[in-house]
Amino acid sequence: MIPGTEIGIRIDQTLTQDATGTMVMLELEAMGISKIKTELSVQYVDHNLLQEDFKNADDHLFLRTAAQKFGLWYSRAGNGVSHPVHMERFGIPGKSMAGSDSHTPAAGAIGMLALGAGGLDVAFSMAGEPLHFKMPRIMGVKLVGKLPDWVSAKDIILEMLRRYGVNGGRGIIFEYYGPGLESLSAMDRHVIANMGTELGATTTVFPSDHEVKRFLKVQEREKDWVEIVADQGASYDLADEINLSELEPLIACPSSPGNVVKVKDVAGTPISQVVIGSSANPGIRDFWIAGEIVKDKTINPSISLDINPTSRQVIENLIQMGSLANLVKSGARFHQAGCLGCIGMGQAPAYGKNSLRTVPRNFPGRSGTLDDKVYLCSPETAAASALTGAITDPRDMEHLYGMKYPHYKNSEKEIINTSMLLAPSAGTSGELEKGPNIKSFPDFSPLPDTFEAPVLLKMGDNISTDEILKAGVKVLSYRSNIPEISKWSFNIIDSQFYVKAIKAQETYGGHIVVAGHNYAQGSSREHAAIAPRYIGQIAVIAKSYARLGWQNLINFGIIPFEFINESDYDTIDPNDEIRISGITDSFLKNTEHVALNMTKNLKYRLTHGLSERQTEVLLHGGIINFHKSRELVHSKG
Amino acid sequence: MIPGTEIGIRIDQTLTQDATGTMVMLELEAMGISKIKTELSVQYVDHNLLQEDFKNADDHLFLRTAAQKFGLWYSRAGNGVSHPVHMERFGIPGKSMAGSDSHTPAAGAIGMLALGAGGLDVAFSMAGEPLHFKMPRIMGVKLVGKLPDWVSAKDIILEMLRRYGVNGGRGIIFEYYGPGLESLSAMDRHVIANMGTELGATTTVFPSDHEVKRFLKVQEREKDWVEIVADQGASYDLADEINLSELEPLIACPSSPGNVVKVKDVAGTPISQVVIGSSANPGIRDFWIAGEIVKDKTINPSISLDINPTSRQVIENLIQMGSLANLVKSGARFHQAGCLGCIGMGQAPAYGKNSLRTVPRNFPGRSGTLDDKVYLCSPETAAASALTGAITDPRDMEHLYGMKYPHYKNSEKEIINTSMLLAPSAGTSGELEKGPNIKSFPDFSPLPDTFEAPVLLKMGDNISTDEILKAGVKVLSYRSNIPEISKWSFNIIDSQFYVKAIKAQETYGGHIVVAGHNYAQGSSREHAAIAPRYIGQIAVIAKSYARLGWQNLINFGIIPFEFINESDYDTIDPNDEIRISGITDSFLKNTEHVALNMTKNLKYRLTHGLSERQTEVLLHGGIINFHKSRELVHSKG
Repeated sequence: MIPGTEIGIRIDQTLTQDATGTMVMLELEAMGISKIKTELSVQYVDHNLLQEDFKNADDHLFLRTAAQKFGLWYSRAGNGVSHPVHMERFGIPGKSMAGSDSHTPAAGAIGMLALGAGGLDVAFSMAGEPLHFKMPRIMGVKLVGKLPDWVSAKDIILEMLRRYGVNGGRGIIFEYYGPGLESLSAMDRHVIANMGTELGATTTVFPSDHEVKRFLKVQEREKDWVEIVADQGASYDLADEINLSELEPLIACPSSPGNVVKVKDVAGTPISQVVIGSSANPGIRDFWIAGEIVKDKTINPSISLDINPTSRQVIENLIQMGSLANLVKSGARFHQAGCLGCIGMGQAPAYGKNSLRTVPRNFPGRSGTLDDKVYLCSPETAAASALTGAITDPRDMEHLYGMKYPHYKNSEKEIINTSMLLAPSAGTSGELEKGPNIKSFPDFSPLPDTFEAPVLLKMGDNISTDEILKAGVKVLSYRSNIPEISKWSFNIIDSQFYVKAIKAQETYGGHIVVAGHNYAQGSSREHAAIAPRYIGQIAVIAKSYARLGWQNLINFGIIPFEFINESDYDTIDPNDEIRISGITDSFLKNTEHVALNMTKNLKYRLTHGLSERQTEVLLHGGIINFHKSRELVHSKG
Repeated sequence: MIPGTEIGIRIDQTLTQDATGTMVMLELEAMGISKIKTELSVQYVDHNLLQEDFKNADDHLFLRTAAQKFGLWYSRAGNGVSHPVHMERFGIPGKSMAGSDSHTPAAGAIGMLALGAGGLDVAFSMAGEPLHFKMPRIMGVKLVGKLPDWVSAKDIILEMLRRYGVNGGRGIIFEYYGPGLESLSAMDRHVIANMGTELGATTTVFPSDHEVKRFLKVQEREKDWVEIVADQGASYDLADEINLSELEPLIACPSSPGNVVKVKDVAGTPISQVVIGSSANPGIRDFWIAGEIVKDKTINPSISLDINPTSRQVIENLIQMGSLANLVKSGARFHQAGCLGCIGMGQAPAYGKNSLRTVPRNFPGRSGTLDDKVYLCSPETAAASALTGAITDPRDMEHLYGMKYPHYKNSEKEIINTSMLLAPSAGTSGELEKGPNIKSFPDFSPLPDTFEAPVLLKMGDNISTDEILKAGVKVLSYRSNIPEISKWSFNIIDSQFYVKAIKAQETYGGHIVVAGHNYAQGSSREHAAIAPRYIGQIAVIAKSYARLGWQNLINFGIIPFEFINESDYDTIDPNDEIRISGITDSFLKNTEHVALNMTKNLKYRLTHGLSERQTEVLLHGGIINFHKSRELVHSKG
């Protein structure tokens, strides 16, 4: 357990959502899994609920049948955002969780060790494999004092972002403790744990204390509670302290969650939209306080006030408490429970206008509007600003509207809604329902021992996954359809690439590409490996690779060769035919490989940085084949 | 007032929505209108609320500033569907209304004479011009008896569609009367008047009786009520009668509202989606009954139950009545108030699955899913089917669930919500806020007296407006941006057309096109004239024209010439240069025009079927220029 070295942990629970889940389910199918091995896994549908055409509704149907086939719970479209629903209905203190969503650490609010991971990692977690990551350092953050009126949990995590920025949490688990916790409900802690991701943190944890017990009791799950608190005088790798009494309303300016200033410093900035909700402010309290602030008032005519409820259970409670009526009466637009505007699935702001949101992120363009100007703040700041039409320090409500801060009292009882949760046992035929845009994960053959194939592209340095496979809704809507999405491989660099690759596949059985330094940088999108592989990519020869992209190439069976002599790069040209033989032997003996440029009659010395396990993965033709072969051994054993 | 002859009526009120309204507002601007001349006009935002990017939000901002500049009420995004909101807040018995939405006749429910019209017609109505249409025949439909349990207003209009089909109402105004009205509330009548459009009717009218008085009193607008009932023994051009007591639950099968059968004849058909709401079932009762049916039950796991509330006022009342809680508790997805799934703006059904909806239309693909299978029915049938997962005769609720029919009692008091209605006087700067995708309507020059221009296209018979200007979201999202949308002119026929037209405009000052019979058939889309005109189209020479397309050519200043000798068509080829001179004189003297084919040295005799007024319009370069010139005369006079 030395910080920086790789560790593997057993995973008790998993969380997948619709944007990542369809591929995870197709991977489970390809791996030949019959039932998952985790204690509990839940497939949520929260990201895309717009249903602009059949593809979206088809994804929902497919996920339902997949959940039933593999033994997951299924949270239906409109049931709510994964993180708060998971906390309300499934989270258990002390359990570990892997989730194919970057805000999975939110479950740390009730003392879970919850990590965001790639879809394939989560699929392997469900298959019973450990989750590997680098042992982080632990930072103890002591909370003292008590939040002043008009300041809430969001301001605490914004204060952390002010101190550490968006990279300050890399390789760190944040553990909050101290007397300041007394005034923070479990859902308040969710706000902080959720946005720990914005610090770049590995995850965030809170103790499982009497407040978590109260929360689980309200959820009618008191039996799931166990006490987990830090030892007295526990020591941490790193330490910090926040005096809550001294906090003021804070705001992250466009376009980074780390760009934090005091609300009063940007007060008066005109806005045209306010969005309240999302996984970063999901609790009943967050909507209740907004409702209390706008009660019996009308929002400013220049404002669209959009309410994204986070679960149908929250909606039912807001109806009962009168909060929904307060919001609707004031002029709010009330949307279905889901992620929606937070990930640009609707509610994009107008061009050149400021949008104020309680969501976790304001990365450029994430709202759906290019050059957007999104500010992040608390529900208090958001609701006050919706009334005035400009960014407003919520403390000004006292003199502007003669209003005292409304103090929320945690309930001892709430309405529980499980109507849209389907139990794993609800399974019927076990057949996967695949609409025309959902295709099974393709079979990939094992690595050939010898190949002779043309260089279809010669690229420079820093080629990103976006150039390898175009981003954007149009292409990514085919994420569950590898045959279709593969047509977009390298399309930005060469619009004829797909045609050339198919021809090379017919003539040579595949192709290779050549690149400079830092190949496959950018997002972790696995399709940037799967798609080229599908149309016959055997190998990449590059000067160097970005880490995630390199792992993905191996996972899906493309050899990531590196030049031993970088200058060889200069002698290769597009359409050169490259021959490499005795591949298996070189890998097993871990010697260098020799490539012959048949066109130019040159030899290149190639290497790779693969571990023994990775070599095996590659020889099998990818990690799914590898897993299947091991399962076969197990089942025969 | 002879049926079939053109009449013109003074318009008291207008209704525009966002899909048609942006162009209407740009036309008002181009006409130089400072204030509208109607008694009341309302700009609604209900069609597109998804805000996938800035364009949608920009449209909303533009419409708000336009409403304030020209003196319209503005109903903000999320306030609800135009028709029920108009009836609740603005409609007045006996007044006339023109609306740029085909379901405008819904206002006939409270005794208005309300007609759907093109955007330009509505713009001219606002400018104080009369609305012209052919004098229809009147059909008196006598309602006798009383609706049985589990049968409601939707079944009455479905019965009319069963009798007359989707064309049976052409050239007819339906007037409902008789003792059966006693059991139909104003909102029940709205259901019938709204879907009269599906019969192809000119409009539908109901009397303004004591029920309308009750309705307006509940809306706190009793002062707007006037009694308007048919004379005793009034005679009608046509007559029919429905005995309500004999009606059964009915359903329109895919994919026509006229494809009506009894629900029991298709009972058991599996479905995957139920949508309740839309302008065709907008009343509190319609949601209340659905809520009562699903109360304390859970919807079938195979069903997505989508609730489209129709106004925020309805939402507030449903909260208070407990109906919203009933729906949410059962598993319904609750959406913002607007048209949404009814016009394919979200909630598209899955591929190959049946969708059951209370909306007015099930035209193929309208739901957003190609080859969709949409059924139309009452809220009773929809809610019962949501529970069972298959089309269900709601009368079966009695033996399936031991349930008695819940009888709705019309309220004497409802919550009124006006928070999202901006009064015309709310205007501020009078400046139009135009995002980057909203461009002013272009200035068009008057007709030249002589031109010499190339034939850029020679087309066959039955060229549709879709071929002239591509339909679909991608192109139509530029409907307020003529420079951009014009790039798609004739793109389906010749992808290089735009480039050629720009070149011809630079070299010759414009171009002409040649076509066979029935040119510009299809939709009434004005952009199919505006876009070619913008890139220099001076004239079309065709064998004959479709009526609406022909009017649009004249309205936007393109000459619709017709061959006197059809065989001349055969002698023209693309790129031939055509010269016509003395155009003004020929038009004013109403003589034939002579075109010289300079390339082939041939003469063509051309005619046109223009009225004197249309000739003037054309000479001015289009109807907007014509209107401006007349206003100038008036203001000088």
